[in-house]
Amino acid sequence: MKIAQITPLYEAVPPRFYGGTERVVAHLTDALVDLGHEVTLFASSDARTKARLVSVRDQAIRLDPAQLKSDLAAHLSQLAEVRERAAQFDVIHFHTDMIHFPFFDGMAQKTVTTLHGRLDLKDLQGVYRRWPRFPLVSISDNQRRPLPSANWAATVHHGVRADLYRFQPRGEGYLAFLGRISPEKRPDRAIAIAKRVGMKLKIAAKVDAADRAYFEEKIEPLLHDPLIEFVGEIGDTEKSAFLGGAEALLFPIDWPEPFGLVMIEAMACGTPVVAYDCGSVPEIIQDGLTGFIVRDEDAAVAAVRRVPELDRWAIRRRFDERFSATAMARRYLDIYARGVERACSKTGVAAE
Amino acid sequence: MKIAQITPLYEAVPPRFYGGTERVVAHLTDALVDLGHEVTLFASSDARTKARLVSVRDQAIRLDPAQLKSDLAAHLSQLAEVRERAAQFDVIHFHTDMIHFPFFDGMAQKTVTTLHGRLDLKDLQGVYRRWPRFPLVSISDNQRRPLPSANWAATVHHGVRADLYRFQPRGEGYLAFLGRISPEKRPDRAIAIAKRVGMKLKIAAKVDAADRAYFEEKIEPLLHDPLIEFVGEIGDTEKSAFLGGAEALLFPIDWPEPFGLVMIEAMACGTPVVAYDCGSVPEIIQDGLTGFIVRDEDAAVAAVRRVPELDRWAIRRRFDERFSATAMARRYLDIYARGVERACSKTGVAAE
Repeated sequence: MKIAQITPLYEAVPPRFYGGTERVVAHLTDALVDLGHEVTLFASSDARTKARLVSVRDQAIRLDPAQLKSDLAAHLSQLAEVRERAAQFDVIHFHTDMIHFPFFDGMAQKTVTTLHGRLDLKDLQGVYRRWPRFPLVSISDNQRRPLPSANWAATVHHGVRADLYRFQPRGEGYLAFLGRISPEKRPDRAIAIAKRVGMKLKIAAKVDAADRAYFEEKIEPLLHDPLIEFVGEIGDTEKSAFLGGAEALLFPIDWPEPFGLVMIEAMACGTPVVAYDCGSVPEIIQDGLTGFIVRDEDAAVAAVRRVPELDRWAIRRRFDERFSATAMARRYLDIYARGVERACSKTGVAAE
Repeated sequence: MKIAQITPLYEAVPPRFYGGTERVVAHLTDALVDLGHEVTLFASSDARTKARLVSVRDQAIRLDPAQLKSDLAAHLSQLAEVRERAAQFDVIHFHTDMIHFPFFDGMAQKTVTTLHGRLDLKDLQGVYRRWPRFPLVSISDNQRRPLPSANWAATVHHGVRADLYRFQPRGEGYLAFLGRISPEKRPDRAIAIAKRVGMKLKIAAKVDAADRAYFEEKIEPLLHDPLIEFVGEIGDTEKSAFLGGAEALLFPIDWPEPFGLVMIEAMACGTPVVAYDCGSVPEIIQDGLTGFIVRDEDAAVAAVRRVPELDRWAIRRRFDERFSATAMARRYLDIYARGVERACSKTGVAAE
């Protein structure tokens, strides 16, 4: 199949550091190529991909040292480029939320749009009502809740490339927190849990400018403890060792997380996840098999103590079955095929 | 003529406080109605306008206390609404930069787009090259510099409604600074000038979240001086008295200001402007008549001392001739008429 993948341009594909969407696009694209498809990726020049790359910007926006730049303009140019070449593809797969809708109005049936963000924002309802013909993919069933009547085609859980994450049969005695420092990720809860259990906690996290005040006021004062180690933002090469060395990943979120990529990255290393029952969590974690789902700090502390009962091999096996990039790519191929079928059955009636 | 005005949705039309674009849209719309045209304004419900209002959001985005909202979604819905009704208008006038381009590709000739922002941003060139048929209006000739080969139809300087600004024949002994507190507006320069001249300076200014650190580190320490009075953000009703009472407005900018609405608001009150030679300044201020154009602090200090030489009546007269909303509306009507003519002469050849 001839497939176009359209990524947001904020981070490189895959990202050097933090960045969920561009990572999933990278892994999906490579997996589709591995499965024998002809894939074209519309991204910035710094992409590393097995697909054919159509470069639409010299570098990812957030990596670009230029002070004066325009996100919106960059994406408009990208989408104009995609539209010009649209006839070359059987399916065009967008990861750009909704900004492409006005461009592809006339060919919605040959598109697939994966929504990567939270959907409980005030203005979204109107947009998905006005463009009802774009088939949408949710990344968890829970993510759909605020927009139950949108044009959902499927839920496809994210996957990551199995070969990039090294399985570790044993942890090295610490707990891990990996992500952004922000109120909804609740690093403060992770710290409290680690202190109560008396285990070392390593925090590998990015601090966005928007969250700097939160970090300085709420989190930094909690770091002065021999059990807590703040290692800053880590790159892809360090991630596998960081997650694999942990006895458990703490994921004590306090918001409707649409997916939570770090959970499956931990599972790929064989590391169990202790997660709060929010958003996608019950769809990703199997309680008592790949981790524990908890609702408060007492339960989290108890869960961490029970982590040694879990089988790290079984966690990795579960990852391979459900959350590898190949598993994700196969599910998307089903959706693409359905779209192509629908489009063909309409040919002559309402083509384009 | 049947005219649609499409405003950004960030501030109310007109804004309660700071906000240049929505203010100009408000004044232009009312002036077009006063000149006998049938005008429809696509804006949020809190607009106060003489035109017919098509409400596309319950309130302006920045005034909306909702935490979770989407600028992009709000504007996409607005533009979808405009497109649905496009056939009702002779001309559709956009103040939304470029986000409408993909919607109105097929009818660019019946649109006018006023660009309100700075144009020296990295990604803009590509967009204006890809959509070369949308007639563009610059708000100063200087603004065009980074995009000399875009499809410029005209420069139209901003205007404001004369009746909203009360002329004051005499100042009350202070200098004024009005705007945002930000490094490119250089409130520090205004403070230094006032101190050297030994005159009181009143600063009426908004501090955006993005500029809070700059305010606290660079400006706040300068405010502890009997000559300097920080009055915070002021509303429309206070503005006329604030500007009219000033001996001069200080406009010591350090960036390519595309227009600088406050300069003409001061002129409307009869107040001279001492401005640095940047961006649009030489197009707006007539040196020795409506104010002084300076290049450094020494010249600014000398200029403030010469302000009593200027005739406040002459300044207001100059405002009435060149910068009233009616003057602006007439210039836009010329541009609309040219568009309608072009569109008619093409009918039957390439009528959309």
